[in-house]
Amino acid sequence: MREPNTFSKQTIAESSIVPPKSENAWVGAAWKRLDQLTKPKRSLGRLEDLAARLCGIQRTLAPQTKPRGVLVFAGDHGVCEEGVSAFPQSVTIEMMKNMAAGGAAVSVLSRLHDAKLTVIDVGSALPAGLPLAGVARKPIREGTRNFTKTEAMTDVETRRAIEIGREHVRLEHRQGTRVLVLGEMGIGNTTPATALVAAILRCPVDDLIGRGTGIDDAGLARKRNAIEQALSLHEKRFTSVESILACVGGYELAALVGAMLEAVERALVVLLDGFIVSSTALAASAIHPAVRDVLIAAHESAEPGHARILHHLGLNPVLRLDMRLGEASGALAALPVLDAAAALFNDMSTFESSGVSQARS
Amino acid sequence: MREPNTFSKQTIAESSIVPPKSENAWVGAAWKRLDQLTKPKRSLGRLEDLAARLCGIQRTLAPQTKPRGVLVFAGDHGVCEEGVSAFPQSVTIEMMKNMAAGGAAVSVLSRLHDAKLTVIDVGSALPAGLPLAGVARKPIREGTRNFTKTEAMTDVETRRAIEIGREHVRLEHRQGTRVLVLGEMGIGNTTPATALVAAILRCPVDDLIGRGTGIDDAGLARKRNAIEQALSLHEKRFTSVESILACVGGYELAALVGAMLEAVERALVVLLDGFIVSSTALAASAIHPAVRDVLIAAHESAEPGHARILHHLGLNPVLRLDMRLGEASGALAALPVLDAAAALFNDMSTFESSGVSQARS
Repeated sequence: MREPNTFSKQTIAESSIVPPKSENAWVGAAWKRLDQLTKPKRSLGRLEDLAARLCGIQRTLAPQTKPRGVLVFAGDHGVCEEGVSAFPQSVTIEMMKNMAAGGAAVSVLSRLHDAKLTVIDVGSALPAGLPLAGVARKPIREGTRNFTKTEAMTDVETRRAIEIGREHVRLEHRQGTRVLVLGEMGIGNTTPATALVAAILRCPVDDLIGRGTGIDDAGLARKRNAIEQALSLHEKRFTSVESILACVGGYELAALVGAMLEAVERALVVLLDGFIVSSTALAASAIHPAVRDVLIAAHESAEPGHARILHHLGLNPVLRLDMRLGEASGALAALPVLDAAAALFNDMSTFESSGVSQARS
Repeated sequence: MREPNTFSKQTIAESSIVPPKSENAWVGAAWKRLDQLTKPKRSLGRLEDLAARLCGIQRTLAPQTKPRGVLVFAGDHGVCEEGVSAFPQSVTIEMMKNMAAGGAAVSVLSRLHDAKLTVIDVGSALPAGLPLAGVARKPIREGTRNFTKTEAMTDVETRRAIEIGREHVRLEHRQGTRVLVLGEMGIGNTTPATALVAAILRCPVDDLIGRGTGIDDAGLARKRNAIEQALSLHEKRFTSVESILACVGGYELAALVGAMLEAVERALVVLLDGFIVSSTALAASAIHPAVRDVLIAAHESAEPGHARILHHLGLNPVLRLDMRLGEASGALAALPVLDAAAALFNDMSTFESSGVSQARS
């Protein structure tokens, strides 16, 4: 599989209506086995769907969810100048430290579920020379430009961010990772994510916009205004997903796109987090429709646009717990459900092996 | 706390409309801590509710979900003579063997989530003298009587089954169990469970009845018929929950009621499974309303009556995965979400301890 180099408007529109490819030979064989396990047919509900999908993605009848790697990409956003977030921009750096020190939600859940956490700074406001213990520092710039005034990133920067995402997935793959858990950190990043989705789906901002980390009414109005301004300023450059990403995206968003493009080439299961990560899944699958075949939606967040993205990708979330934290916290909350699906598939006895009688037909 | 010995019709009706007591001093203190953790307020959604509930039930600010014990109570049902199940009755015994041998869904998930599984035969069709390796055999009778013709159990048998449930919870408590995961096995037991709920809630059978393990239309008609017959045959004896249990219940159902009555006295968290276990939660909380304060609804099953019971108990399920297997499989699927809630509560850093800036207010 190779990523095409140019993307017409038509590619974007078309890909967005193709349902995810749910069938391949492994999926069929997986269902055959599922129906032999000692339980009423299909009585494990969506756990069976998940098991079959794991088999399909990993091309196996012995699906594995370990080892798993959590990649959290972080970046800052010039548009924060417009007052679009409830938190000061310094929190991006502070939270990377907190993640590395083990005190953030993503750190706690990674430890709990035996997942290796890597935090990658692809463009926070921390000057390039300064180290940040426990964080992979690969800053492209000290935050994006304010996209209400100019492109958030240059095309070269966008490609660089995509490449950093790819690099880290290649590294995970070399280390044997079977499930990739993707997360992000970036104060203000529901603003570029909303702009990205609005530009790709060509839908009204009001269908998507939410309060992110909890902004008030005045802040929400500023956020809406900033997004609308950016969309009309850059509209003429919305000729490819890469270009949309450059205009209204961000370094961590582009890195996530790269991570997914690489994951599909390595047949890695990608467990999506919330609105931000899913916005990049929409972008990645608009670039390369096969991306959708490796995605599993962990949860549906409280951010209004998330349900819309998932619906568009044809994905049914595992959890609905009104989470809206990001970081990969929602993905990690759902990870043990994937573990359960794989364990049941691999370890349950069959009617034949156990001597349990089948249903009368 | 003591269980009252007599229950008027009024007690049943009244208790069924009291919402669960969600507040106590521990819950308030838990929310205070949750709001200091490094995340936007309430952004962990229902994980925060769960953490606060764990604190409230365990009366602590250090909630623990380990060790946890899985108790699966099993029994057979005379009403199977009426052809109410898709599976032959022999499957109850076969599945107990399968559980003990490690091949059933509940066995796989117990191992995966580090929970100790105990299978207790309180009244399967296996004659009393015969052993069943790995199963605690405490059979009261070789299955209940056919409740379309006579009472399923005598009052003495019912009390004995309740006492077996209590005994096993006392044992768990002595072994340090913090979360009790309850499950059941009994071919045909959606039939008595449906009758039990219909009698307690005084609602039409058609609002509750489902296909259980997957019975066909003709079987569903037989099942409806058997339940309706039993309800009109025994109606005059529906003067207390214990008496309803005796008329239309079953040994494993009564044992589950006993387990919950004991759990509330020991302040143990009870993680409910699906329709059957929840039907006994309805019965237990009609006997003793405080039972509801220790219940957590793990999932909402595909069996139609389940949502109705949960609504009635004021419980919002953690998962909705269209499961309908029973055994405790749904409860075990949700258990790691409880683990996550407790771990986040206990292990996340606070704004103060980590130096992360708070939201602008």
